[in-house]
Amino acid sequence: MGKIIRPLANLHDRLRRLPGLGSKSAMRLAYKIIDMPMEEVERLADAILVAKRDVHLCKQCYNLTADEYCEICNDVKRDRSMICVVEQPPDVTAMERSQGYKGLYHVLHGVMSPLDGIGPDQLRLKELFQRLETEEAEEVIIATNSDVEGEATASYLAQLLKPTGIKVSRIAQGLPMGGDLEFADELTLAQAVENRRRIC
Amino acid sequence: MGKIIRPLANLHDRLRRLPGLGSKSAMRLAYKIIDMPMEEVERLADAILVAKRDVHLCKQCYNLTADEYCEICNDVKRDRSMICVVEQPPDVTAMERSQGYKGLYHVLHGVMSPLDGIGPDQLRLKELFQRLETEEAEEVIIATNSDVEGEATASYLAQLLKPTGIKVSRIAQGLPMGGDLEFADELTLAQAVENRRRIC
Repeated sequence: MGKIIRPLANLHDRLRRLPGLGSKSAMRLAYKIIDMPMEEVERLADAILVAKRDVHLCKQCYNLTADEYCEICNDVKRDRSMICVVEQPPDVTAMERSQGYKGLYHVLHGVMSPLDGIGPDQLRLKELFQRLETEEAEEVIIATNSDVEGEATASYLAQLLKPTGIKVSRIAQGLPMGGDLEFADELTLAQAVENRRRIC
Repeated sequence: MGKIIRPLANLHDRLRRLPGLGSKSAMRLAYKIIDMPMEEVERLADAILVAKRDVHLCKQCYNLTADEYCEICNDVKRDRSMICVVEQPPDVTAMERSQGYKGLYHVLHGVMSPLDGIGPDQLRLKELFQRLETEEAEEVIIATNSDVEGEATASYLAQLLKPTGIKVSRIAQGLPMGGDLEFADELTLAQAVENRRRIC
């Protein structure tokens, strides 16, 4: 970066570690932050620390929450006969935006990926089976992404669930292949839930 | 954002104020930050605050610096007979990367934009004229952007400088290096023809 000053270079370095920020975008952000009023900068830094400190995982579904249980698990109007299994918390947000689903969720926090050393033990699978023992769920809807890892995880999970006799379905292939759940449009997602097909 | 938790919504809101971050990118960043180890998050927040606190404007050229004067103004090897006027600090970085200029700079911190209520008084123009009185500059190179505001600012500045008798130049406009004639816009091409230089 040529003649760059250390606190600016350090901020640039920190911003570059965030996803989707290349060197130039990170530098633009760094310049913008230095140009903002001190009060705004303090609020940004504070929002980062507070979010990290106060947001944790729901004790039931492992979605993000600021309380013990998330709003969805706490909501008595949700259909407790269905548990929708997703990879990450943003996927819950995406599903909720689609308004096509009124059941509960279970967030795996990852997806099986042998190349990255992520196997079943790194996912919240044990916790899902504990829920199935104690809760009144009748159906598990697997809504992992429809890329290679998401499909592999879905197959693996379906096989594990088979002996339990519980109904297992996979969201329909309305989701474009290779597509990311987080960025799907609402109609596609709603259709995908509507057309889910039983796989065992 | 549907059922979103307050600290997360607040972080999302703060990130959205940064340039180039839409709602979805800001949410991806927010989720990523919550997913980062606490130590990494603290370092990010700290880098933001330290950069804002320690980086300020060079007393001579108004570029960013962590000291009283910036590295360029302090560098005895720079050619003090030339002052290159740019809009913003990142423009200095861009010029330095090009390695095509060895003089000093003057950062206006803006550009004239009547629609945004930015007139000459909001720019570091007075400071430029003070420099011309006390320093040994013989030429001012105006390197504002070549958009409407940049051109207007360049014309205005050139008129102000005329009575001083100092040499004033404007960086050349034409086809970018490696640029394809077929894809150049009409204005650029017209400028490139207008500013043609004889080669034999």
